[in-house]
Amino acid sequence: MHMIQPGMEIDVLKENGKLASENYRLLKSHQIKSVDFMGSIGAGKTALIIKIAEKLRAKGVRVCAIAGDVTGDDDYARFEKSGLEAVNCNTGHECHLDAHLIHHTLDKMDLSKYDVVLIENVGNLVCPADFPLGTDYRVVVISTTEGDDMVRKHHDIFQHSDVAILNKVDLAEVMEVDPDAIVEDHRKLTGGLKRMYKCSVKTGEGLDEIMAALKL
Amino acid sequence: MHMIQPGMEIDVLKENGKLASENYRLLKSHQIKSVDFMGSIGAGKTALIIKIAEKLRAKGVRVCAIAGDVTGDDDYARFEKSGLEAVNCNTGHECHLDAHLIHHTLDKMDLSKYDVVLIENVGNLVCPADFPLGTDYRVVVISTTEGDDMVRKHHDIFQHSDVAILNKVDLAEVMEVDPDAIVEDHRKLTGGLKRMYKCSVKTGEGLDEIMAALKL
Repeated sequence: MHMIQPGMEIDVLKENGKLASENYRLLKSHQIKSVDFMGSIGAGKTALIIKIAEKLRAKGVRVCAIAGDVTGDDDYARFEKSGLEAVNCNTGHECHLDAHLIHHTLDKMDLSKYDVVLIENVGNLVCPADFPLGTDYRVVVISTTEGDDMVRKHHDIFQHSDVAILNKVDLAEVMEVDPDAIVEDHRKLTGGLKRMYKCSVKTGEGLDEIMAALKL
Repeated sequence: MHMIQPGMEIDVLKENGKLASENYRLLKSHQIKSVDFMGSIGAGKTALIIKIAEKLRAKGVRVCAIAGDVTGDDDYARFEKSGLEAVNCNTGHECHLDAHLIHHTLDKMDLSKYDVVLIENVGNLVCPADFPLGTDYRVVVISTTEGDDMVRKHHDIFQHSDVAILNKVDLAEVMEVDPDAIVEDHRKLTGGLKRMYKCSVKTGEGLDEIMAALKL
């Protein structure tokens, strides 16, 4: 659902910003590192979070995931099935998580139990951009199956993200997509200030580099 | 960008509905058939529209496409390159087309030149649902590369669409996705009242059936 009055838009963003700062302080008071994973449906956010969590758990790090979706609990169920503790967070109708929803979700969790919280945003490459949740890092995940024009079409989310990930590079050839051209679009858009990491959650390629970038 | 006040939300939708009716009347006054193609980025909307337009042009039907995107002209350029006349329609920041934007776009076109207008909405499986544009048909396009949970996660857009299309069935095996399970999710959600068509724009499978469903 979308706003049209500019004045009101600013109020909503301001309010979200305030609550995001509160979330950040709350997470930091428990020494929790947190990451917000944004991106379209099918980009591989759920699988990526599961893989990162597995690697963290192998190092003894206590991880929890928050599964954000408009409706249903598919991602939550996938997290739990993989052995990753998770909380389901449905927006009901909204096309993105916001700091208010995450505030309520964190309220329900026993934060003393975790070192890292990984948040999966609603599958959407546009709307989450404007709504920081108060995490340490904001990550945008895209995949080669989405074509080669994502960066050119969706400036906002790449500019608002700290790290960009191009997933499913193992499928690039089948998809007739050149990963380096997408990385180059991203380099141009961000003036080289931010980096896009190529990875394949399936083969494991690039995951260690991404974890290093996120200081996990 | 998103609204939170329920009262205002209703006003925006009401206003959109009014303009959608005007668009519909305008198109009908020129005997134009029109279709709104919604769906996530990478679902194959552009390629599908190009294929449908080719088939229509082969029958002597005069077609124009409207390329909706947040920013850039990638889809517009693809349409033009394929020989399909097109108009670019950037939303600037918004994550979906609305009846107002389409109203302005139709205003700029010489509608006496066309029999069919095919509109490609912004790549987004959530937000366009609430904003009919005034077309004869609303179509949602998903693809096997998006996983198998799209219908379960995004009720709204499937309920608001007349026809659903599951594209890239030729990649189902590589993607380890069962197309029939997705079709079954859709059948359950719509109580069998609406139909999901399996297709592959690449191989041409299913296209004639889709065109028949859209009375094209």
